[in-house]
Amino acid sequence: MTTPRDVLTRGLVDHGYWIATGAPGIFGRTARFNAILEGFDALVIDVGREAGAERVEFPPVMDREILRRAGFMESFPELCGSIHGYRAAKGSHLDLIDRVEAGGDWTEYLEQLPLTLSPAACYPLYPSCTGRLPAGGRLFDLSTFAFRAEPSDDPARLQAFRQHENVRLGAPEDVRAWRDAWSGRGLEMLGALGLDARLELATDPFFGRGGRLLAANQLAEELKFEVVVPITSESSPTALCSFNYHEDKFARAFDITTADGGLAHSACIGFGLERVVLALLETHGFDLTVWPARVREAVGL
Amino acid sequence: MTTPRDVLTRGLVDHGYWIATGAPGIFGRTARFNAILEGFDALVIDVGREAGAERVEFPPVMDREILRRAGFMESFPELCGSIHGYRAAKGSHLDLIDRVEAGGDWTEYLEQLPLTLSPAACYPLYPSCTGRLPAGGRLFDLSTFAFRAEPSDDPARLQAFRQHENVRLGAPEDVRAWRDAWSGRGLEMLGALGLDARLELATDPFFGRGGRLLAANQLAEELKFEVVVPITSESSPTALCSFNYHEDKFARAFDITTADGGLAHSACIGFGLERVVLALLETHGFDLTVWPARVREAVGL
Repeated sequence: MTTPRDVLTRGLVDHGYWIATGAPGIFGRTARFNAILEGFDALVIDVGREAGAERVEFPPVMDREILRRAGFMESFPELCGSIHGYRAAKGSHLDLIDRVEAGGDWTEYLEQLPLTLSPAACYPLYPSCTGRLPAGGRLFDLSTFAFRAEPSDDPARLQAFRQHENVRLGAPEDVRAWRDAWSGRGLEMLGALGLDARLELATDPFFGRGGRLLAANQLAEELKFEVVVPITSESSPTALCSFNYHEDKFARAFDITTADGGLAHSACIGFGLERVVLALLETHGFDLTVWPARVREAVGL
Repeated sequence: MTTPRDVLTRGLVDHGYWIATGAPGIFGRTARFNAILEGFDALVIDVGREAGAERVEFPPVMDREILRRAGFMESFPELCGSIHGYRAAKGSHLDLIDRVEAGGDWTEYLEQLPLTLSPAACYPLYPSCTGRLPAGGRLFDLSTFAFRAEPSDDPARLQAFRQHENVRLGAPEDVRAWRDAWSGRGLEMLGALGLDARLELATDPFFGRGGRLLAANQLAEELKFEVVVPITSESSPTALCSFNYHEDKFARAFDITTADGGLAHSACIGFGLERVVLALLETHGFDLTVWPARVREAVGL
């Protein structure tokens, strides 16, 4: 049976936006696709620039120790991409090659390197902020290629995807006010592109039974909101943007204090950039010449 | 003892170009650093655009099967970053968390996913070209965040770095002529930025004893050239750009033929973009205001 997900994926490939690569959720991107993505990205960059954000890009790979300190494996163990490499002490090169050729698992020849893929743009930032924040706190604009080990046939659930985040660190009241202001702005930015966007209270996909308690707390404290837009399903719309209030979670893990010495709070807002492009293509069509003029103009086409 | 490498790394951090992250060869990049990198990148994009290249970006993660078919593990086993993920069948989540907290290796809880990091921009391209090329062949302009598992204190030997490649596929004489033309152009582009650049015959860092034969053949056939510039050592200058003639290696592995049905040949040229920025900063200094006007202008500063 051909599903709406298959139809969208096929359309993205046939209309020259994506190149299939053999792995689920891993696609090459053509200039045609990236022009839309970068056009929207520029709108997010503008917001950060006007607010005086420090713009930083971290590579897609990070120190494994950061995920340990952040407690990532407690909440999202299945999403982490751990990086392993061949070291001669693990076995001979000729045996490794035979194993690779046989097509099996070669784990026994590899050792775990002190690195993981970055599941989100903001993780490597926190340890760089250890210590006392300046008065008023700090604001960052972060871009990265994020990875989550969740193979799917949903073109809006990529394993490797571009994420654009803004992160605010500071006193609790400043951070909460910033997050609340962004919720309205995110809804407005996506609505202005002709998308059927709405703001929803949300939870993270915490793992296992313990995770259900974390999710219930997240809902009760209203820590996470998302702007969702229907892409391949009206009944299960896709989150294009999320707003997360961390309270002192990261400040505690990475020893970040406000100017007056108290534990800082933090919040982040993040856009999944490919999802924004997919929502635009699904809403306005694969033929860019028939997109509403104001949408074309907004994303610089 | 403080080495020239330490001095450069410290300078990059102190002058606000890089953010240290705890892992060797993994640095955050500030807007100040990326402005130079993107300025040079735009020059490379211009060359491809004028030649009619198809511009494509692949994610930093790719199908593991591609490296097997390309014979990558035979030549460079230690450079590959293999990606592994937790699956509940491998052990309980609580046991995994204990292991993570203890700080040891958690490999036994993980399984090898069918994914690796991309060691170069061009690998995922070849399988997308399987079949018959159009008359005249094809030309691609590729960008990616590449990964090589080689921790080093040399700031010019990053584990995660941006690579900008052009790839030509077609008839042998066309491909060789294209590679030769690029060798001169690469030398000229870097020389025009005031860098002490020279072209050298080179070899890849093939693994082990068998690798010495491959390297000898590469030299004898003049398959690889590099443009090198001194960064932290006059006697061991760093390759900023390399030109590789693959003969029919990738066409054979991925069944790519020319329009008349013969095996295609391929060649790639690649810039290590951070290395270009490092060479510029080392040559002209950390204070961009005193850079030669023509260099500032060339990279759009």
